[in-house]
Amino acid sequence: MVIQEELRRVKMVAPTLAASAGEMRNRALRAVGDSLLAQQDAIFEANREDMEQAAVGGVAGPILKRLKFDEGKLRDVVAGIEDLIRMPDPLFQTQLKRELDEGLILERVSCPIGVIGVIFEARPDALVQISALCIKSGNCVVLKGGSEALRTNRKLFEIIYDAVLSAGLPEHCMMQLEARSEINELLDCHESVDLLIPRGSNAFVRYIMDHTKIPVMGHADGICHIYVDKDADLDKAVPVIFDAKTQYVSACNTVETLLIHRDVAQALMPRLKEALDKREVEIRGSREIAGIIDCEPATEADDTSEYLDYILSVKTVDDVQEAIDHINRYGSHHTDCIVTENAGTAERFMALVDSAGVYQNCSTRFADGYRYGFGAEVGISTGKIHARGPVGLEGLLSCKYKLYGQGQVVADYASGAKQFHFKNL
Amino acid sequence: MVIQEELRRVKMVAPTLAASAGEMRNRALRAVGDSLLAQQDAIFEANREDMEQAAVGGVAGPILKRLKFDEGKLRDVVAGIEDLIRMPDPLFQTQLKRELDEGLILERVSCPIGVIGVIFEARPDALVQISALCIKSGNCVVLKGGSEALRTNRKLFEIIYDAVLSAGLPEHCMMQLEARSEINELLDCHESVDLLIPRGSNAFVRYIMDHTKIPVMGHADGICHIYVDKDADLDKAVPVIFDAKTQYVSACNTVETLLIHRDVAQALMPRLKEALDKREVEIRGSREIAGIIDCEPATEADDTSEYLDYILSVKTVDDVQEAIDHINRYGSHHTDCIVTENAGTAERFMALVDSAGVYQNCSTRFADGYRYGFGAEVGISTGKIHARGPVGLEGLLSCKYKLYGQGQVVADYASGAKQFHFKNL
Repeated sequence: MVIQEELRRVKMVAPTLAASAGEMRNRALRAVGDSLLAQQDAIFEANREDMEQAAVGGVAGPILKRLKFDEGKLRDVVAGIEDLIRMPDPLFQTQLKRELDEGLILERVSCPIGVIGVIFEARPDALVQISALCIKSGNCVVLKGGSEALRTNRKLFEIIYDAVLSAGLPEHCMMQLEARSEINELLDCHESVDLLIPRGSNAFVRYIMDHTKIPVMGHADGICHIYVDKDADLDKAVPVIFDAKTQYVSACNTVETLLIHRDVAQALMPRLKEALDKREVEIRGSREIAGIIDCEPATEADDTSEYLDYILSVKTVDDVQEAIDHINRYGSHHTDCIVTENAGTAERFMALVDSAGVYQNCSTRFADGYRYGFGAEVGISTGKIHARGPVGLEGLLSCKYKLYGQGQVVADYASGAKQFHFKNL
Repeated sequence: MVIQEELRRVKMVAPTLAASAGEMRNRALRAVGDSLLAQQDAIFEANREDMEQAAVGGVAGPILKRLKFDEGKLRDVVAGIEDLIRMPDPLFQTQLKRELDEGLILERVSCPIGVIGVIFEARPDALVQISALCIKSGNCVVLKGGSEALRTNRKLFEIIYDAVLSAGLPEHCMMQLEARSEINELLDCHESVDLLIPRGSNAFVRYIMDHTKIPVMGHADGICHIYVDKDADLDKAVPVIFDAKTQYVSACNTVETLLIHRDVAQALMPRLKEALDKREVEIRGSREIAGIIDCEPATEADDTSEYLDYILSVKTVDDVQEAIDHINRYGSHHTDCIVTENAGTAERFMALVDSAGVYQNCSTRFADGYRYGFGAEVGISTGKIHARGPVGLEGLLSCKYKLYGQGQVVADYASGAKQFHFKNL
């Protein structure tokens, strides 16, 4: 229950951080950037130890690549911090100002959400990015990174937290969890934590969603589709599918299921197979597809599978409506694409597919905060409540209503003695 | 499991309703208004039966008042529908348009949330208002009203649903539940329902929140505070407190706890007691308050009690910071007010109190969508995720990202062959 007590302290200082001046939060960001650069040797040393341990433990190559925190990554995160400093203060923005009646002024202003818990993979650069986004947006943050990065994260957190305090932000405005067992304690603290952002495997995110009363922002599955329409330009379809499947196979925005209009399957499939064969992508085809190319047979389970691997399921459909219905039924409302030259069909697909991202003629891999120009992102949301799609600063904000009066009472309006006149200012 | 099947059908038509033209949704609203007027006799007849049953069952006066659906209430809801028709279409609004690179255009557009479940008290006018808000915002809605209004609700739903279909909106876009047992079935349907809005007692809302994976928007408690500062104008304090406590005692925005700066307690309390005595309000005071006026003793339980009754707990504090800390600790983040003439103290209070509404010198009873000029409201949210405060049309919206390309692939940007240039259009 130590965690619970500590979280309560974080919650207690959240209003103070929320009320801090943008200038002070920028000063904190600058101190973070400076300290990271000044103490880079200590960071790299801690990272070397993590890398050695991971290598001993037989951690796979792609994970080692993420775990590595070198000069290039340091340069990138410091540049990201500089970008955030240049951005206008997201807090205290007046979103609405209305005179309800004479001398009774309503304002809606942006404010931070409060305390955000982020559970993320073994990527030390993610710790810096998430911390910086939370500092800029005035949110307290509780960080739990992947255990492979334990030493690097501990060093980074120490540097960031010290820098933040030196700039005058309140004590306890940041907190780090290190043990995996502490995640369950965190999940119980719905009184202290306003929002959880879990990143990681499907099963892990689902576990989080199923075991907490704290609102969760993020996504479990990423079953993305590409539909190749009868009016598709196949010269676009082949590279788009190839990129969406192979550019980074374990990402959530990778395509898993390909739907093809029956009329173009014969023309597309041999060309597509030739391209995918270069990366040894296994095609699991419906019966009709198996009649065109040599492939593995697809089963019903393939409709709902997120492979995160060099596997693509392919089936034919009669028309765009069948593609839309399939995607809305089996998809995970993440990112889905139509390849077509027909603007009307594209609009129909993009209006009716109920996903955070609906694309025409480009790779699903574009679904990413950086590629959307949001700067850093804390995650991608497939929910429709609060933020949707890639989530940057904006998704970390809430608002509050301020009402300035001069002694007004509701009884006067209920009796008809006074009337509201609602004048936007 | 019949409910589950029906809800799945509702979910299936949600994208069609989401893509419907604003003109068609306005036509549906007009048809609803016309049909309600044309069939008013049948509605009043059903309502008479409900009222009779309620009277026989010994239902209390205030509930009977809400249950009654007469010409006045019909006129009000039809006027509300006319207001909604005049409002601009909230859907398909472009919130962001950005060229990521040549020929790669990102747009964020507003869209409905999808399927909204609303569970509300025995107020037939609420059924009409909620339905109208959902039609305007392109959301499918599942309605469960208080059982006392069974016959009225059934008639109203029949009229509204028929009108909506006659205007061309898709079948199954609205659904009504009648049995209380069906609520539990609804709570299980997180695959089909995107958002739940429960209204009713604290215990009821908490039950809903604790028994579903569907996101819930609303509030359980409404423990609102008024803090009377040392720089308060007592001529404002007394009527504001009187109104906030007595104008409608069972509302969520009624004040429950009064905090008084020690320096003004002596001057305020006798005047306040004189006013509250007129409505027989029971004052539960701290020891210091009991030394000034005759009152009941307050216990710790009073700090966390929502009385919804003619009871007010009163305690003294040393300064505004103690008031802020008390409110953030014991309040429900609904609406809290400071009475002061000191602008600096007011700003501090309004910045540091972590509530959906922070007021200066006016009654907490103003926390209401109608009084904020939002038109109808579906509820008041004390959460900070998604909507906060009184929720009208805006809280029923989400967004989606559309990306229009010409065959672009991520590999070109990852390799550096192409660069994003992020130009807002």
